[in-house]
Amino acid sequence: MVGENEVSSLRRLELGQSATETGYEFSEAEVQAQIPWPFQTGGGGDGLVQFQTGSDGPRIGLEERDGGNVIDLNAFDPSLPRRMREFLEVGDAALAIARRAQESGQHILPRAQVNLLAPIPNPGKVICVGLNYADHCLEQNVKIPEEPIIFSKFPSSVTGPYDEIIHPAESQEVDWEVELAFVIGKKGTHIKSAAMDHIVGFMVANDVTARDWQMKRNGMQWILGKSFDTFCPLGPAIVTKDCVPDPHKLGIRCKVNGELVQDSNTSQMIFKTQALVAWVSQFITLYPGDVFLTGTPPGTGVFQKPPVFLKRGDVVQCEIDQLGALLNKVI
Amino acid sequence: MVGENEVSSLRRLELGQSATETGYEFSEAEVQAQIPWPFQTGGGGDGLVQFQTGSDGPRIGLEERDGGNVIDLNAFDPSLPRRMREFLEVGDAALAIARRAQESGQHILPRAQVNLLAPIPNPGKVICVGLNYADHCLEQNVKIPEEPIIFSKFPSSVTGPYDEIIHPAESQEVDWEVELAFVIGKKGTHIKSAAMDHIVGFMVANDVTARDWQMKRNGMQWILGKSFDTFCPLGPAIVTKDCVPDPHKLGIRCKVNGELVQDSNTSQMIFKTQALVAWVSQFITLYPGDVFLTGTPPGTGVFQKPPVFLKRGDVVQCEIDQLGALLNKVI
Repeated sequence: MVGENEVSSLRRLELGQSATETGYEFSEAEVQAQIPWPFQTGGGGDGLVQFQTGSDGPRIGLEERDGGNVIDLNAFDPSLPRRMREFLEVGDAALAIARRAQESGQHILPRAQVNLLAPIPNPGKVICVGLNYADHCLEQNVKIPEEPIIFSKFPSSVTGPYDEIIHPAESQEVDWEVELAFVIGKKGTHIKSAAMDHIVGFMVANDVTARDWQMKRNGMQWILGKSFDTFCPLGPAIVTKDCVPDPHKLGIRCKVNGELVQDSNTSQMIFKTQALVAWVSQFITLYPGDVFLTGTPPGTGVFQKPPVFLKRGDVVQCEIDQLGALLNKVI
Repeated sequence: MVGENEVSSLRRLELGQSATETGYEFSEAEVQAQIPWPFQTGGGGDGLVQFQTGSDGPRIGLEERDGGNVIDLNAFDPSLPRRMREFLEVGDAALAIARRAQESGQHILPRAQVNLLAPIPNPGKVICVGLNYADHCLEQNVKIPEEPIIFSKFPSSVTGPYDEIIHPAESQEVDWEVELAFVIGKKGTHIKSAAMDHIVGFMVANDVTARDWQMKRNGMQWILGKSFDTFCPLGPAIVTKDCVPDPHKLGIRCKVNGELVQDSNTSQMIFKTQALVAWVSQFITLYPGDVFLTGTPPGTGVFQKPPVFLKRGDVVQCEIDQLGALLNKVI
């Protein structure tokens, strides 16, 4: 978790203030790299968030499209679960309550009072897809896969959209990977045509990876290098699917210290959202709160010449059109 | 889940009745392969179980060492969580209540009224170790690893000790792997000397594996072939560590249709319990309810000449001295 001063600085940055106005030292490039906050979805949809105020436990909120304030859903209906996974298990009834809360115009918390956590701090599964961008395959000079390659991050690696990424002493090759993530809202197995019915919404993920442990150690099984604590920033909100007209037509970018390092479009995805749900649900029952990470575009550090890796003090910004941005400092 | 008649038949088998007394068709070899139930721990310890009676939700129990009856801990103290993961999060206080319940001599349910579920139906992580038996490495003619090889099964693959293993249409090479499992009872990271303080107890696991998906597909990432629904039978109880004098000196066996196919000893483990906790906690914070599967001895189907795989109707029995046995029918 970032310290209180730093959180406050990150918030100021989100709110569009310049680096000189913040206590935290962002470079000029970083400042130029600011994205508008709250994200401008352009649709009629909402962002489900898991948040905290002060030292209270986590609560569920609905982020307003204009202004970025957060409607406290647990205050509106105290019978609602306070954890996103359990909230999603309630299903459509929970989303209907969220809509009623929005219409009520009540229980609105100013954005500045709210500390956003990962929208799903404890997913049952983090299901990842390797080599899923055509341009990323080209970059590595590898063949486009004929089937999705599925791997995983342990759910304990999940962290918040503005939390710090802890650089482990055990790795010298910590790398970034911006990814489109989606969240399962309805249990299912052997899902075929109605895949989108099982998805509640989309968010941004950073599939942080220790390349040394992924590629050279652990018998080539990727999970260890993918699962250090804090290696899975998620958020800032689950943007419900009704406000994402085409999830496969979104600009997707990563900036490190303000410098654009990944810049592609989700149209480059080889296996799209529906295909991934259909593929994985052949093997595994999907449950509400399961999270998919759909692969990264070119521009990761390991394929730079020479390779570049994250160091303590770096700031990584992962952003996707209509979904917002993650902003994580490496410590 | 097995049907009611079959559960009842399996129970009769556990209780030492012969195949002819059961409605379910076990072969003569299977009958000879019966192990005593309840397991004779030989120590003073207890078995924590997650159980159901009728259509009620899951409850936590303590299995009596003699007789196999189950003390209903939620009846003794209604404030206790009803799910094992949350129960373990309570920590030593929960175990102290379990001891008081045992001393009270109350709330004892006859074993025949109780349907045992996986002791932890929803672990946060299933952390697996590959190639961890010296004799298993020899069988494959591979070098003994210098570091543990860590992989994972998705937690949704967990199933109960007497539940059915669903043979997926998607695989032609479903194999067995008996393994010693242990359960984390206390959160920790970078755990060094006091590893055993973080473990609550031991149980039996079957790391069921679709070899075709593990070895030939999915870019050689093992997780998909390891994670089909029902591919992780666990149980029958978490035998608390105080009643397992030496977890690395236990006979470990697997029988398929009564025929002994794996027969080794946990003394053959290359990386022992404490070393695995220390290794993994360098990377990942361990939480109460996380489950480790510590690798399998020789005798899996894929290394038979010619290879042998499970087919529908087979019965797999995985057993470890002092911990009891899993008995799962393949359907």
